[in-house]
Amino acid sequence: MTNQDRATWNAQMKQRAAETLQRVRAHSVQAHPAQPAAVRLGAQQLAAMIDHTILKADATSAMVKQVCAEADRHRFASVCVNSANVALCVEALRGTNIPVCSVVGFPLGASLTEAKAFEAQQAIAAGATEIDMVINIGALKDGDYALVKDDIARVVDACHQQGAICKVIIETTYLTDEEKVAACLLIVEAGADYCKTSTGFGPSGATVADVALMRAVVGPDTGVKAAGGIRSYEDAVAMVAAGASRIGASASVKIVQSASDSNVEG
Amino acid sequence: MTNQDRATWNAQMKQRAAETLQRVRAHSVQAHPAQPAAVRLGAQQLAAMIDHTILKADATSAMVKQVCAEADRHRFASVCVNSANVALCVEALRGTNIPVCSVVGFPLGASLTEAKAFEAQQAIAAGATEIDMVINIGALKDGDYALVKDDIARVVDACHQQGAICKVIIETTYLTDEEKVAACLLIVEAGADYCKTSTGFGPSGATVADVALMRAVVGPDTGVKAAGGIRSYEDAVAMVAAGASRIGASASVKIVQSASDSNVEG
Repeated sequence: MTNQDRATWNAQMKQRAAETLQRVRAHSVQAHPAQPAAVRLGAQQLAAMIDHTILKADATSAMVKQVCAEADRHRFASVCVNSANVALCVEALRGTNIPVCSVVGFPLGASLTEAKAFEAQQAIAAGATEIDMVINIGALKDGDYALVKDDIARVVDACHQQGAICKVIIETTYLTDEEKVAACLLIVEAGADYCKTSTGFGPSGATVADVALMRAVVGPDTGVKAAGGIRSYEDAVAMVAAGASRIGASASVKIVQSASDSNVEG
Repeated sequence: MTNQDRATWNAQMKQRAAETLQRVRAHSVQAHPAQPAAVRLGAQQLAAMIDHTILKADATSAMVKQVCAEADRHRFASVCVNSANVALCVEALRGTNIPVCSVVGFPLGASLTEAKAFEAQQAIAAGATEIDMVINIGALKDGDYALVKDDIARVVDACHQQGAICKVIIETTYLTDEEKVAACLLIVEAGADYCKTSTGFGPSGATVADVALMRAVVGPDTGVKAAGGIRSYEDAVAMVAAGASRIGASASVKIVQSASDSNVEG
């Protein structure tokens, strides 16, 4: 792409994001009264949607192994860890059929595209089958949508070539609504499997409004993962009602235990 | 190394860290009254010790360029950025002779060793001549010193092969004093150029006590970089008095302007 083509492409994408946001807002004003959030989820149903997560810088092997044991007991969707802990999780989860999810370019998203793609490859080689990458947030704020899309696409391609799925974190806390929409459009264009709200390391995490917006933009064929600050059964259910198909949480055990305590069938 | 050799090596390193800590503590009780902090630094002297830093996830190109312009104006030691911004800084700093410093495995330190070494290589290929990596904190807390050393050494080797220097962040906020000492011993063994206190993303940053401890352990031939929460001239001077040979800060302009305001020769 020449610089001129790139500027044109970026301008068109900005226009598309603005129009998409307008359409979504118009639609949600109409649709809202007709769609009260009425989702009920049992403990098992909810557990199967949760990436049980431990990403703390000072997580020890013992802590990571405990998260794996909890994932097996409650049948969570996956265990989500930093790439250095993938091999440990693969070993701890052997025979359980629970996948290992590794984060990449995490949590700042400001590492080189080559470094993100390489980390994804290495994490998959170590046994991860799901990759949660962070977009280049600064480039998105610069309006350099071509760079943002290429960055995502390179990691998505690395994942798909090795049979892994790719979730793409947009870190909503730093974005305007139009930037959130642009990021979601780029994620769909890049062929990623999920968009994801937050890293859990920013100043704020998932909100119901952001999940609803992201779902409206990506449509039914791309997943939406809500993560960051989801600490209760009510939080998790509200995210699912808003359109989340996956939840990231470290308080997962408490969340599903509250589901069991509620009068909901498992 | 066999598992048995590794366990023996780790146990010996733990013993060495404990003994070193005891020796440093005994010495500092004696030395303290004789060494009142009496460091005076002018604006230029101090500026030449500061890595002017912008690592925020949402840093735009304009913000990064402004940091580069400030670095040129005040003659800071380097500009420190995420790896995705190295090329932009190289361009913005052309002709100024100010080096670009890139962080690696940042800020959690829990990415795969291969991914850290690759990110360092790529950042250097893009023009960085200084690399600030984060250790595997979880492995240090596990007592797996062999892993921590290998992780550091692989990045240091990648740096030195391409003529770059390597600073190693131990993220003191998560560590006991014995763990801080062990980390510093491993940094020296791995041949790194600096140990560094903090990422600036943890719950707390550099302290005078930690800088003094780290300096006492690494001796005069390895640098000590104090970073995280250094926001005033007084903060910076206290770190230098305690033994820091480099300062990481984003409030660098304010820091050197206060130095000019103080009655110190520049």
